[in-house]
Amino acid sequence: MKKVINAPQNVVSEMIQGMVLAFPNYVKKVPTADVIVRADAKKGKVALISGGGSGHEPSHAGFVGHGMLDAGVCGAVFTSPAPDAVLEAIKAVKTDAGVLLIIKNYSGDVMNFEMAMEMAEAEGISVDSVVIDDDVAVENSTYTVGRRGIAGTVLLHKIAGAKAEAGASLAEVKAVAEKVVANVRSMGMALTPCIIPEAGKPGFEIGENEMEVGLGIHGEPGVRREAIKPADAIVTELMDKILADMKLNSGEEVAVLVNGLGATPLMELFVINKKVNEILTGKGIKIHKTLVGEYMTAIEMAGFSISVLKLDAELKGLLDAKADTPAYKEF
Amino acid sequence: MKKVINAPQNVVSEMIQGMVLAFPNYVKKVPTADVIVRADAKKGKVALISGGGSGHEPSHAGFVGHGMLDAGVCGAVFTSPAPDAVLEAIKAVKTDAGVLLIIKNYSGDVMNFEMAMEMAEAEGISVDSVVIDDDVAVENSTYTVGRRGIAGTVLLHKIAGAKAEAGASLAEVKAVAEKVVANVRSMGMALTPCIIPEAGKPGFEIGENEMEVGLGIHGEPGVRREAIKPADAIVTELMDKILADMKLNSGEEVAVLVNGLGATPLMELFVINKKVNEILTGKGIKIHKTLVGEYMTAIEMAGFSISVLKLDAELKGLLDAKADTPAYKEF
Repeated sequence: MKKVINAPQNVVSEMIQGMVLAFPNYVKKVPTADVIVRADAKKGKVALISGGGSGHEPSHAGFVGHGMLDAGVCGAVFTSPAPDAVLEAIKAVKTDAGVLLIIKNYSGDVMNFEMAMEMAEAEGISVDSVVIDDDVAVENSTYTVGRRGIAGTVLLHKIAGAKAEAGASLAEVKAVAEKVVANVRSMGMALTPCIIPEAGKPGFEIGENEMEVGLGIHGEPGVRREAIKPADAIVTELMDKILADMKLNSGEEVAVLVNGLGATPLMELFVINKKVNEILTGKGIKIHKTLVGEYMTAIEMAGFSISVLKLDAELKGLLDAKADTPAYKEF
Repeated sequence: MKKVINAPQNVVSEMIQGMVLAFPNYVKKVPTADVIVRADAKKGKVALISGGGSGHEPSHAGFVGHGMLDAGVCGAVFTSPAPDAVLEAIKAVKTDAGVLLIIKNYSGDVMNFEMAMEMAEAEGISVDSVVIDDDVAVENSTYTVGRRGIAGTVLLHKIAGAKAEAGASLAEVKAVAEKVVANVRSMGMALTPCIIPEAGKPGFEIGENEMEVGLGIHGEPGVRREAIKPADAIVTELMDKILADMKLNSGEEVAVLVNGLGATPLMELFVINKKVNEILTGKGIKIHKTLVGEYMTAIEMAGFSISVLKLDAELKGLLDAKADTPAYKEF
């Protein structure tokens, strides 16, 4: 196993310690759980919490900070955090304005976050949730009923975070979060599997000249496996599927996220972005903002995803608002 | 070859196009050369230029912007840019305050950048240069006389860039650049080779259970090849070598850069940072700032480097100064 780690069972704990030591002005750990919260907890605003299995870094803890999340819950690698951990996060950041949970649509996450929500409500805490299912690759998947939630989640963190930071109510933050969910679509592909540290070997194999289209961020099966094609052909295939699922007309505006899954270099992500840009501008669609980099990974998987978010004036303003977290750079 | 590219010979050109399309508010391409310059060229300050072979993204073009570089010269993958391209960069960003070239110590880069400097001086442009050789792994290497220049270069871009942005003279910017070179040390290791697109296969192989300590960012041989060890043992070995080469006393302050080489996930970089932090704080050394991420890569190599920069009041102030480029987030 080609990893720079110590004992596999300690990797999440050591990762969290290394992150907090790197960015003490931004984040701290909740003493009793694998939960990262803002170093400068802001009161009087809706608190945003996301999380899930680890292995998707910088998601989600890297987006804890001003204008994005208030807490990131870190489960074991590719394993939903237990309801108790989510409840600890809720208690750590709750405010009188309420708490919103941002949940990627995986059965384990949905079950555990909703259970934590019920536990919190039983204690009198005002909590609501939104589930994101942006991946258009497959209708149902190994770990989901319905579509999976993938990198579009980062755009949701940004926009809902800006709304909360601006002092909106829980209902208003939830409404804008649901607007993002309704308007963001993503799809990815992969060239290699990844290795869960405690497993020690890949969960599956892909041939030397093969790729898998629509592969999930935990290695769940995608749409099909085929010979590696040129970047432009791959991007065209993914964009066709994404755009077929959106109502996008010439003159409308979007944000684009070209997301690396872990091992794919920036060089390739920029080659991919060139084609994404050509396809969208060729249809008369205006690209308001582009993000290129590793935002939602699958440990060291080689591959990428494309997310397209249709914007209106409100979403543009929130996307452009100030944010300052370890892994989010404003553009 | 597991890459998402089109024709290998077009990868640098397409990468540059994809980058400019992603960040049009930050950067633009010089029409006649593979050179990235600031979209908002700032006059009246010393212009900073760096560059080298492509494949180290986001170095160097990702650091073009306010408070860092004015131009990044992109050679073919792992190939020094020709003197003509460097001269184009100099002409594109020169100001009356002069131009400083930041050169990583590789024979090809030193030769071509110095040749461009002579050509520019013959045209009456005021140009000076600084060479960085922060890698303590080996004294001479495949492509160098003397030590190699690696990820410490990014800290040099940041600090010299801040000095230039503040309006310092060419001599003053060069002096602070040389202070960084004198005070920064780095060392890396790798678990896998990488593939130059036009070659189509790895330049060398590393066994499934092996790592190479001190491997260069082009795959140049390192100190030794051995069985993979736990992260803490690897970090201890690299830090021993780095610290043996620096005069660092208890109570002094440093900046730390834990740099991924391309395929190593953030999860591992944070595990690495935990041990780097423990070693330094255990010696009474204060860590003023930590950067963790991919700053100077070797395409999709799995591995990392650690850089330690000894700080004084001037370097701290410049490191903390405002910077805004596609790949540099202020902390």
